[in-house]
Amino acid sequence: MEKASVSKATLGRLPGYLEFLRTISLKGTSHISSTAIARKLSLGEVLVRKDLASVSGAGKPRVGYVISELIEKIEKLLGCNRPTPAVLVGAGKLGMALLRYDEFENYGVKILRAFDRNPDVVNRDGGEIFPMESFRDFCQTEEIHIGIITVGASSAQQVCDLMVESGITAIWNFAPCKLCVPEGILLQNENLALSLAHLNNQLGFAN
Amino acid sequence: MEKASVSKATLGRLPGYLEFLRTISLKGTSHISSTAIARKLSLGEVLVRKDLASVSGAGKPRVGYVISELIEKIEKLLGCNRPTPAVLVGAGKLGMALLRYDEFENYGVKILRAFDRNPDVVNRDGGEIFPMESFRDFCQTEEIHIGIITVGASSAQQVCDLMVESGITAIWNFAPCKLCVPEGILLQNENLALSLAHLNNQLGFAN
Repeated sequence: MEKASVSKATLGRLPGYLEFLRTISLKGTSHISSTAIARKLSLGEVLVRKDLASVSGAGKPRVGYVISELIEKIEKLLGCNRPTPAVLVGAGKLGMALLRYDEFENYGVKILRAFDRNPDVVNRDGGEIFPMESFRDFCQTEEIHIGIITVGASSAQQVCDLMVESGITAIWNFAPCKLCVPEGILLQNENLALSLAHLNNQLGFAN
Repeated sequence: MEKASVSKATLGRLPGYLEFLRTISLKGTSHISSTAIARKLSLGEVLVRKDLASVSGAGKPRVGYVISELIEKIEKLLGCNRPTPAVLVGAGKLGMALLRYDEFENYGVKILRAFDRNPDVVNRDGGEIFPMESFRDFCQTEEIHIGIITVGASSAQQVCDLMVESGITAIWNFAPCKLCVPEGILLQNENLALSLAHLNNQLGFAN
């Protein structure tokens, strides 16, 4: 793969740069300086230069960046042109919220299907949710590499094991429990409660 | 307030310690060493000692920690006995998922009410969702300090302003946009798409 390594913080700002660059590109502008980008997006100049350097190298003095090149490089890095397909297991409220969350595609990931073991859930949303029996075949046929776990803690490890067996190499886990994965499998735990607790803990000092 | 400052990483492990300590306390154990905790929870000993030091100070050599004291201190720090009340605006899929997410209370926060400006949504779930007209009064009467924004980007700033006017001092924003808050207001942006993009970006190297 040709993806370049950028920090998570930089990655988080790329869709913002991309949107801005696309807008000014439509207006016929061909070049832009990091100073102008920084001003428009209310970011620090040093930060913008650092971000863009990790994407594209330095801009030319007194000319800046060629906008079309910058757009192309950011799109490539985010994988916008060919989003990475992902699947999700556990079509509860959180699972459905993620399935319908528009922003993922702007960041280069598309959740193709949600699976659930409960037949009532599978039939609920007019064929949008698929039964677990079809999970492995689907992942292998479509060569899915990203799996999202939104089941409860009690069945999360079982789902995780199935994902690994089905060829998934990166797992995004929302279940509030520790998962064991074989070496070479990426595991990212998302603890929403922790984010809220952190805010609450900070609040203790703000007052 | 008497909350102690602990890192977000430590905070994330506290509910795990708490659950374990409560379990062994019920079995009649009165003391425990950091070594034993580390082994049971598959964590590093140094890490456990550091975590517990930030909560409670050091354990006694050869005796360890008094379990009941440790439980009390963790509960106090997490605010388990008196959860901080929070409100949520935007009762879409994500909002409802958060409203029904069980884990928040283990981390000392309770979402009391969800509000929405859409009358159809307000009437949908049998009185669980409240109209925006009652938002300010509710927050002021109940002295709410935490607000969660799960509306779209276009109305997020308006909701944010209303929260600040209603006395909320900490905002957890899920809308994919930048918000302006006055000085002294805590703002935590949650970008779910970014987490997934980060995983995707890492995957680029794992393969």
